[in-house]
Amino acid sequence: MATTKILIILGSDSDLPIMEDGLNFLKAMGVAYTLDISSAHRHPEKTVALARKAREQGIEVIIAAAGLAAHLPGVVASHTTLPVIGIPLKGEALNGLDALLSIVQMPKGVPVATVGVNASRNACILACEILSIKYPQTRKKMEQLKETMRNEVEEKSKQIAHSSGRKGSRKTK
Amino acid sequence: MATTKILIILGSDSDLPIMEDGLNFLKAMGVAYTLDISSAHRHPEKTVALARKAREQGIEVIIAAAGLAAHLPGVVASHTTLPVIGIPLKGEALNGLDALLSIVQMPKGVPVATVGVNASRNACILACEILSIKYPQTRKKMEQLKETMRNEVEEKSKQIAHSSGRKGSRKTK
Amino acid sequence: MATTKILIILGSDSDLPIMEDGLNFLKAMGVAYTLDISSAHRHPEKTVALARKAREQGIEVIIAAAGLAAHLPGVVASHTTLPVIGIPLKGEALNGLDALLSIVQMPKGVPVATVGVNASRNACILACEILSIKYPQTRKKMEQLKETMRNEVEEKSKQIAHSSGRKGSRKTK
Amino acid sequence: MATTKILIILGSDSDLPIMEDGLNFLKAMGVAYTLDISSAHRHPEKTVALARKAREQGIEVIIAAAGLAAHLPGVVASHTTLPVIGIPLKGEALNGLDALLSIVQMPKGVPVATVGVNASRNACILACEILSIKYPQTRKKMEQLKETMRNEVEEKSKQIAHSSGRKGSRKTK
Amino acid sequence: MATTKILIILGSDSDLPIMEDGLNFLKAMGVAYTLDISSAHRHPEKTVALARKAREQGIEVIIAAAGLAAHLPGVVASHTTLPVIGIPLKGEALNGLDALLSIVQMPKGVPVATVGVNASRNACILACEILSIKYPQTRKKMEQLKETMRNEVEEKSKQIAHSSGRKGSRKTK
Amino acid sequence: MATTKILIILGSDSDLPIMEDGLNFLKAMGVAYTLDISSAHRHPEKTVALARKAREQGIEVIIAAAGLAAHLPGVVASHTTLPVIGIPLKGEALNGLDALLSIVQMPKGVPVATVGVNASRNACILACEILSIKYPQTRKKMEQLKETMRNEVEEKSKQIAHSSGRKGSRKTK
Amino acid sequence: MATTKILIILGSDSDLPIMEDGLNFLKAMGVAYTLDISSAHRHPEKTVALARKAREQGIEVIIAAAGLAAHLPGVVASHTTLPVIGIPLKGEALNGLDALLSIVQMPKGVPVATVGVNASRNACILACEILSIKYPQTRKKMEQLKETMRNEVEEKSKQIAHSSGRKGSRKTK
Amino acid sequence: MATTKILIILGSDSDLPIMEDGLNFLKAMGVAYTLDISSAHRHPEKTVALARKAREQGIEVIIAAAGLAAHLPGVVASHTTLPVIGIPLKGEALNGLDALLSIVQMPKGVPVATVGVNASRNACILACEILSIKYPQTRKKMEQLKETMRNEVEEKSKQIAHSSGRKGSRKTK
Repeated sequence: MATTKILIILGSDSDLPIMEDGLNFLKAMGVAYTLDISSAHRHPEKTVALARKAREQGIEVIIAAAGLAAHLPGVVASHTTLPVIGIPLKGEALNGLDALLSIVQMPKGVPVATVGVNASRNACILACEILSIKYPQTRKKMEQLKETMRNEVEEKSKQIAHSSGRKGSRKTK
Repeated sequence: MATTKILIILGSDSDLPIMEDGLNFLKAMGVAYTLDISSAHRHPEKTVALARKAREQGIEVIIAAAGLAAHLPGVVASHTTLPVIGIPLKGEALNGLDALLSIVQMPKGVPVATVGVNASRNACILACEILSIKYPQTRKKMEQLKETMRNEVEEKSKQIAHSSGRKGSRKTK
Repeated sequence: MATTKILIILGSDSDLPIMEDGLNFLKAMGVAYTLDISSAHRHPEKTVALARKAREQGIEVIIAAAGLAAHLPGVVASHTTLPVIGIPLKGEALNGLDALLSIVQMPKGVPVATVGVNASRNACILACEILSIKYPQTRKKMEQLKETMRNEVEEKSKQIAHSSGRKGSRKTK
Repeated sequence: MATTKILIILGSDSDLPIMEDGLNFLKAMGVAYTLDISSAHRHPEKTVALARKAREQGIEVIIAAAGLAAHLPGVVASHTTLPVIGIPLKGEALNGLDALLSIVQMPKGVPVATVGVNASRNACILACEILSIKYPQTRKKMEQLKETMRNEVEEKSKQIAHSSGRKGSRKTK
Repeated sequence: MATTKILIILGSDSDLPIMEDGLNFLKAMGVAYTLDISSAHRHPEKTVALARKAREQGIEVIIAAAGLAAHLPGVVASHTTLPVIGIPLKGEALNGLDALLSIVQMPKGVPVATVGVNASRNACILACEILSIKYPQTRKKMEQLKETMRNEVEEKSKQIAHSSGRKGSRKTK
Repeated sequence: MATTKILIILGSDSDLPIMEDGLNFLKAMGVAYTLDISSAHRHPEKTVALARKAREQGIEVIIAAAGLAAHLPGVVASHTTLPVIGIPLKGEALNGLDALLSIVQMPKGVPVATVGVNASRNACILACEILSIKYPQTRKKMEQLKETMRNEVEEKSKQIAHSSGRKGSRKTK
Repeated sequence: MATTKILIILGSDSDLPIMEDGLNFLKAMGVAYTLDISSAHRHPEKTVALARKAREQGIEVIIAAAGLAAHLPGVVASHTTLPVIGIPLKGEALNGLDALLSIVQMPKGVPVATVGVNASRNACILACEILSIKYPQTRKKMEQLKETMRNEVEEKSKQIAHSSGRKGSRKTK
Repeated sequence: MATTKILIILGSDSDLPIMEDGLNFLKAMGVAYTLDISSAHRHPEKTVALARKAREQGIEVIIAAAGLAAHLPGVVASHTTLPVIGIPLKGEALNGLDALLSIVQMPKGVPVATVGVNASRNACILACEILSIKYPQTRKKMEQLKETMRNEVEEKSKQIAHSSGRKGSRKTK
């Protein structure tokens, strides 16, 4: 996919470090994305415009990340019929529970596909899973990813698994 | 105040029964209000329009009530510089904690004056307290209200307060 | 779409009433679905088989609903690269917080697109939004749905919106 | 406004660092304030006196900040008909949930306009929004503030927004 | 004890049914009490007066019950050096967690002896335990109570304890 | 197993209805049990005696159920080296979270094997799983149970699974 | 009071640093205390013995501190009719909510006078308030303490209170 | 026991440090164990295989540790009739509440014996208690452990217990 299919909106530039983990995944997948900063509350007009123009610009999945009373994913979802993935960000006071409930408990009619607190990588994987229903290449890469994860677990297991008294010797082969 | 100073926005017509307690207070106070239904998510354009036009239409305080991931008060606040009072409504699943956190934990720059879960009367009292800094008549009525509350407590105390063994005899005189 | 693109898996037949709201949406949309009962814990083999065969059978989105320590969506997601939508169901004791956290907090590598507690309709809307990136007809219907929601809010507003003292007269026109 | 319209009461001098963010806002706005230390529990008489004399001294909004079982805002509100804004402060043990619930869940008749945990700036913005219904100059400044926030988001967006592969190039123009 | 040693203050007359369980205990114990209604917020002056005069009127323990942002016990405690027992009452929305945290998390210097949500009987037992350090008669009755509880458990055990297959036959003798 | 291997202790006779579901499982399994009532707080001596004598009486697993600040399982565990299974019971106020945390968060050295809120059947299944490591007959029955659960899911699936438009026709064969 | 009236029991020697704040208060008050280490779970026999012998040894108030599933205060309370004060200690995982609920939610019949999380000073103040009903000297000192707290607030206020623009000048005199 | 009776499965190699405390206990007990890494989500096939083969390989208790939406213990339990002990691990965002609820709230039919957050030692003690019903040697060692804990409390008490004014002198002899 040469053109950008994924639009990522952050509520603040301070959210960028959390997002890196997900962006690295997209780069590894070779999936293009567009990243922008907007705020549901501090620049609502821009947020609305981003959501409204997304589909006609070729975007197929939107990822929005925000903390506290995290309205950004929901506000975006209210202005598009594209699937919107929400990433609740952990704040200082309430352990991310505020952002999680503000995103996942959307009222009837306007869903947000919510992932775990600070789970930017899972948001990007989910975006690729969605694209995989349309793009065979993405599907293929996702299946390779799954295989890779299995191998990594296997590899770590080999290094660590042991029976006490016989440290280092491997089991369950 | 002959003209409407308070705009009340409900996220859904099903929220009307909870709002009644507050509306009755405003009627008793003789304070005019305008009530409308809008949804931050199902009709975002109308919500934005209500918030934007409020001040020029003479509105001085906005009350917004919503449940679940309750974005309505925050979305309204992002489009006005009027004080916005938010009422979190209790939903079926999470005891109102979702709505409370979605309203009170607003990010820096866009506050919502949050009252308790389902506390429509307190929202309307707060609205009148705000108006009372400008309108001497409202101030006077609010002070009468405070006096009335004191008297009611006194009255109930007279009916109920007693020392065991001497039921009915009053104390603390 | 004549063939089934959506697979819905319920953890128990007792979850069917909660699911109805979502099924009605799919019927109204004319989107075919396949519904099955399986349990991540009581019949793990069947659950794994459903997840594994889904893509080759033409499924493009899976919806899984479960309560308590709700592993069903996560277990399904671990055996497929299709997008999996999870619906946390409210149980008797912990208000649905258990199911919500069991679904949304998936570890890195295996996301579940989580919707609100008991939000079966939102799960089905999200499924259609995902399909809409591939099927123009679904996209068109989703945009009509959004328009319908706006109109419904407008309609309810007309019935209820009023300024106190002038009950019935409409505002914000 | 040459004279002081805002009274800020802190429960303890140790709360001052959290309050700074809000005080800086008021200074930038050129809005005068009076800051005092009192404790609902350790010096209840002073707290009551501050609340009672506030209106006659020209105060129009009171801000009260407290942590733990944070009674200060509620106690102040029970002795005045001025609007009282409460700031819940995060303590060591319960993430600020204790202070939040102790402030926002006020019983019927005595509201506190609650802002987010540690949100001193939002409290001061809300105070200015309230004053803006009476003082055109404050209103004007608040509208400029809103514009500034929009521009800041725009500016940060320009620095950060990009499409992958074309880092630095801007989008959404 | 002929004279009243325990002052019970309820935040509202609607709290009386919850209090009954505790009052019945005091009656059974033959311990005199004085019951009054006052509100930390709706009638703060009366609340202060009750707390201040308590010791000189011969009161030795105060019990205060309140719900929501339950300030009553804390406000009473701030105006007396008598031990104050707080009963958090369950409200409609947050399962009593709001009242519990508002009472138990008192800041340094002003403790409230908190019992469980709605636990009026335990509050009254605690009050008698406190009196028991001064009044030998109360101590004696409290020890009888403990014995009675043991016997009741024994009695119920006799009725219910059994080994399966031999229903009705008792065990652990 | 002719003799009793499982001792079940309830904190109160009012907990019996919740326990029934588990007792029925044991009866279906043909596993003998002894049921008794004791209270960690109201009859601590009996509780201690039950725990201490359990092993010498042939007991191999203890199940203890309690609500609120549910100390019963932990107190029992502190007086025995037998495995103790704890069932947290849902109370009126805090949705069972109080009992759950009071049981599962045992300090280092004295574990309680905690099951879900009100999950008496799971407690009894766990007890049988423990016994199954020693008694081949119990193991065999447990494996049949697992098979039965699979079949039940299969059976319910047959009744309910369908593809929309072709209601009643079965899938995934 | 020359002889020891207060018995303090810690669940672990690692809880000593948290207790220091309270011990310093008792020393400043000149109130003698006895401190011991015991564990409800690791040494239940000693815990029971401490509770049982307390009254005959002249103890009049017991303070017990524990974390996690904090049974110590409740177990002590079940073996004495003296007032027992419980201090919930914050652990690593659940912010002290586990210890708080394990102590405060005691079942009917066996109250624990619970103070805030880690609030060792408040526990010791409460103990002195209880003693103050019997010992005039303790009462006198407690009243001086209350006066001292008032003065400290006053003093801090003098240092910090100011009106903006006139920093340093004092207010509310 | 020369052969391995306990299988420990970690969801990730990063969980190893938390597990150490438990492993040290097993080593001190001289109880052999087998440790392996697997993930319910990243390598579900291996997880299933480990669970299925456990009994025939002589395993009698399984311990599984996982964080976040911690499905590992439940998935293992669904594929075996051996007792499965679950250790919820604390993650970054929700204080371990997510893992705790994901493990303990297992649906009817498939229990997990849950211990406290990060409580690896308690998990291993519980495993030994289970083995103690079959292996007299383990039983004997567990009873020695209980005695040791009592002595440690006694020892610490001797070092720390004192009455104020007579620091160092011991009490309760």
